[in-house]
Amino acid sequence: MPTKKSKLKVFSLGGLDEIGKNITVLEYANDIIIIDCGVAFPQDDMLGIDLVIPDFSYLQKNKQKIKGIVLTHGHEDHIGSVPYFLRDVNVPIYATKLTLGLVDNKLKEHNLSGVAETHCQTPGEKFKLGTNFTIEFIRTTHSIADSVAIAIKTPVGMVIHSGDFKVDYTPISGESIDLQRFAQLGLDGVLLFLCESTNVEQRGYTMSERSVGIIFEEIFDQSLDQRIMIATFSSNIHRIQQVINSAVKHRRKVLILGRSMINAVTTASELGYLDIPDNILIDASEIRNYNDSELVIITTGSQGEPMAALSRMSSGEHRQIEITPNDKIIISASPIPGNEKTISRVVNELMRRGADVIYEGLMDVHVSGHAKQEEIKLLHALIKPKFLMPIHGEYRHLKQHKELAITIGMKKDNVFVVSNGDVLELTEKTAAVTSTVQAGQVLVDGLGVGDVGSAVLRDRKHLAQDGLMVVVAGICLDGGRCVIVAGPDIISRGFVYVRESEELLEEAKDVVTKAFYFCDDKNITEWNYIRNTIREHLKNYLWQKTKRNPMILPIIMEL
Amino acid sequence: MPTKKSKLKVFSLGGLDEIGKNITVLEYANDIIIIDCGVAFPQDDMLGIDLVIPDFSYLQKNKQKIKGIVLTHGHEDHIGSVPYFLRDVNVPIYATKLTLGLVDNKLKEHNLSGVAETHCQTPGEKFKLGTNFTIEFIRTTHSIADSVAIAIKTPVGMVIHSGDFKVDYTPISGESIDLQRFAQLGLDGVLLFLCESTNVEQRGYTMSERSVGIIFEEIFDQSLDQRIMIATFSSNIHRIQQVINSAVKHRRKVLILGRSMINAVTTASELGYLDIPDNILIDASEIRNYNDSELVIITTGSQGEPMAALSRMSSGEHRQIEITPNDKIIISASPIPGNEKTISRVVNELMRRGADVIYEGLMDVHVSGHAKQEEIKLLHALIKPKFLMPIHGEYRHLKQHKELAITIGMKKDNVFVVSNGDVLELTEKTAAVTSTVQAGQVLVDGLGVGDVGSAVLRDRKHLAQDGLMVVVAGICLDGGRCVIVAGPDIISRGFVYVRESEELLEEAKDVVTKAFYFCDDKNITEWNYIRNTIREHLKNYLWQKTKRNPMILPIIMEL
Repeated sequence: MPTKKSKLKVFSLGGLDEIGKNITVLEYANDIIIIDCGVAFPQDDMLGIDLVIPDFSYLQKNKQKIKGIVLTHGHEDHIGSVPYFLRDVNVPIYATKLTLGLVDNKLKEHNLSGVAETHCQTPGEKFKLGTNFTIEFIRTTHSIADSVAIAIKTPVGMVIHSGDFKVDYTPISGESIDLQRFAQLGLDGVLLFLCESTNVEQRGYTMSERSVGIIFEEIFDQSLDQRIMIATFSSNIHRIQQVINSAVKHRRKVLILGRSMINAVTTASELGYLDIPDNILIDASEIRNYNDSELVIITTGSQGEPMAALSRMSSGEHRQIEITPNDKIIISASPIPGNEKTISRVVNELMRRGADVIYEGLMDVHVSGHAKQEEIKLLHALIKPKFLMPIHGEYRHLKQHKELAITIGMKKDNVFVVSNGDVLELTEKTAAVTSTVQAGQVLVDGLGVGDVGSAVLRDRKHLAQDGLMVVVAGICLDGGRCVIVAGPDIISRGFVYVRESEELLEEAKDVVTKAFYFCDDKNITEWNYIRNTIREHLKNYLWQKTKRNPMILPIIMEL
Repeated sequence: MPTKKSKLKVFSLGGLDEIGKNITVLEYANDIIIIDCGVAFPQDDMLGIDLVIPDFSYLQKNKQKIKGIVLTHGHEDHIGSVPYFLRDVNVPIYATKLTLGLVDNKLKEHNLSGVAETHCQTPGEKFKLGTNFTIEFIRTTHSIADSVAIAIKTPVGMVIHSGDFKVDYTPISGESIDLQRFAQLGLDGVLLFLCESTNVEQRGYTMSERSVGIIFEEIFDQSLDQRIMIATFSSNIHRIQQVINSAVKHRRKVLILGRSMINAVTTASELGYLDIPDNILIDASEIRNYNDSELVIITTGSQGEPMAALSRMSSGEHRQIEITPNDKIIISASPIPGNEKTISRVVNELMRRGADVIYEGLMDVHVSGHAKQEEIKLLHALIKPKFLMPIHGEYRHLKQHKELAITIGMKKDNVFVVSNGDVLELTEKTAAVTSTVQAGQVLVDGLGVGDVGSAVLRDRKHLAQDGLMVVVAGICLDGGRCVIVAGPDIISRGFVYVRESEELLEEAKDVVTKAFYFCDDKNITEWNYIRNTIREHLKNYLWQKTKRNPMILPIIMEL
């Protein structure tokens, strides 16, 4: 027990351009709790990187304090790092049923099944973590079922973390967002609100998920003779439910395509989050038994991912499904920034095969899972927090969130736009950013976690830009002088097309030989110096001839 | 003169995902004319590539037929390939004044000044090319001044090429799009309309360029004490004119930043397309003589280009300008697909420095230069062509253009959605795609044109993904057996961080040695076989240890 009253510390450790996205930490005296533990997807310049996880150093150093991980919902950017974290630190996990089901799948993939205690929590129940935190889940609505906000009662006051949410009054299954509970907590007094900011730049309200189902119905009605195919996020269980509902109504069978889609549908059905009548689902091998008018295909690939089922169908490389002019294909998703071009390419290819393709912009076949300005204001108005820390957004979004909060009466100085690693310290009455902890990104490439750093990425970038040239020579010391006895040989990759550049490569050998004897003439025998001289001479020669700058690796073997 | 009546051939040679974008060719008997000659910008997977130009093989083979290049406007994707084409084939160029001015700049950069005849044409004038083509420019409006559509009278009928256009009734300078002339040609009968499709997916009308000026005025009025900075495309002379107009009105001086912006403003002023009062422009060195409230900066970098002035200011790396909380920065452009993330990063950085940043979505600080659905319909209604070939768009856009044309009465079979290289053959009454010519992309990397092909790109991609490992060994033949006398040495780049992977690299050497003696034991002395064996063994080892697949280059030196 601390003798003098401690302060509550709140900070985030992960997210790339986004702040507070993948993981948020609350610390009070000897207790730490972790809210969400997700991954980010590599940026364009992170060549070859598979995933980006938060820098866990601070948590590893303080692992004896950690009382548990609390998860808001089952999206990758909120649960994807759990296996990486559990490798080093074993702590219990608290989440709703579907979220836990998805975490279990993930742990299985990493051979970590059963390694950590898991606790399935229902919204409304309260549970204690350590001596200082009492947690309560509050039901929200989002693009994945079973999402919650989290209320954390701390010694200095109530903290609410919104998770990802929208205000959907007519969700596809289950109850709507529990606005009454937010109001009740607000009336009792909320010290700090951590609120998501994804769509804070957009005016108005996000439409209900149900509006997409109405459009699906229109499309089904207009496409009586066609085969219907719908690509969406595999985690969007409610979207999938709506497709299945339309399929049932129109007496169509449903084929699920794509590994992640099959996994998600299986898990969600087992846990009771998908209502699929018997004999509706068929296997790809059965497809020939049905007419186009009797079929619906639900598939992965809504982001144009090259290995996903939709892309493979678009390029004619799918083993089981061939696109025909009798296909009506709905891309029920919006492009994640950066994916516009790849999605567009898939759409073009599908159309070239004659398919009708419907995407956002042509019809309202997608709605966001995130609150727009009016919904964010609504939560603020119910909760009326003393302090606000906008999260889940780039700096521009957090700043915009601050402006929005000020328009509805928040005091400017009570809003904290922070960076990952900034520590917000709170007492019952005050809040201030007073220090920082180590935060940042750890790159995952294959089995390697953190072994690819900026030096390796810089080399990959260099190699990607202009390729490489390896120069090899075997030398002998002959009476105090260096003599080239083998080579120089030149091997280039990713630089020029070798057959058409023989002359260039022959001249390059001469440059190398001359550089070598230039050193020898000066009686220089230091390997590094010789290698650098060869590199510089060759670099200048290649730049002058090609205006390109390949990586040059001079290798000298002493024999 | 052809004895039997020839057919008119129309086809496109360039553009990446887009069709008919960079170059269109008309051929009749012994006459060929080229409409536009532009570049495309490399796609994400074209690593290290600077530019993409059309495959000119067909034109090079038929160069004696080419009567001239006709340019619709001065954007890079319409004029950027002129220097590459003129290297091999010298033909006259016909364009409006500003377009020619920009081509001249380009030829100077390539040391090709004066190499080709250039003819400055005014809209309304007619000129003959060869014996079969009579050309007339028709004034249009677009996001660059002096844009035209092109009417080509051919022996089989009138062809109209829209260029890039929007219908702007209130352009910033000069006359509006010449709708009367389109109508007149339509009444006389138009055989084929080649019409742009960029915004064909968007309903309604594109707003007038003037609407942006009104928003600029609002912002100037609200920002009396602030320094105002506006980033836009350097070719958007009318946008720049509007900024200057507001600056003059508010008694602010104007600083132009960025090489391409300075070039564009200089050329446009010299040719009379920009009206800049004396003593308005200042130099960067004079900026300290003025208060923030007396300054406007016009800069490049609206696409987040890392080397442009705006990006350098955002990262604090600009030599002359430092961003302060008293800056109001307007990004007067919309993201070209693929640039969303880089622009967002620049916005975040500018905001972190305290600047107010205004971009599309927050205020209407940009309008497109391309016609939306209602404007496209308007041109169709005036021209009423017999045949339509949608151009300037990806397949999805061309298909949408076809649907749009059908809704306003076009016959489905009279619309030709083609690919680059498809030859549309026309008589006075018929049109059909009958053959193809060689078309496609030629990649420009540094000084190399076409020397980077798919093999080189594949290697760059491999290197970018997982880096490389070079294995070197010197061997001797010793009594019929191969013996390693030097090495094996291993050099890796872009694979793992070497200092933390010493063990892995040591084990890799063992794998190489074993693979070598594995061959030797079998009396294999064929170099290729030995190299492949080493590569395979090492590849398997590295995959098992790291789940990565670097490029492996085994080098064996015989001594």
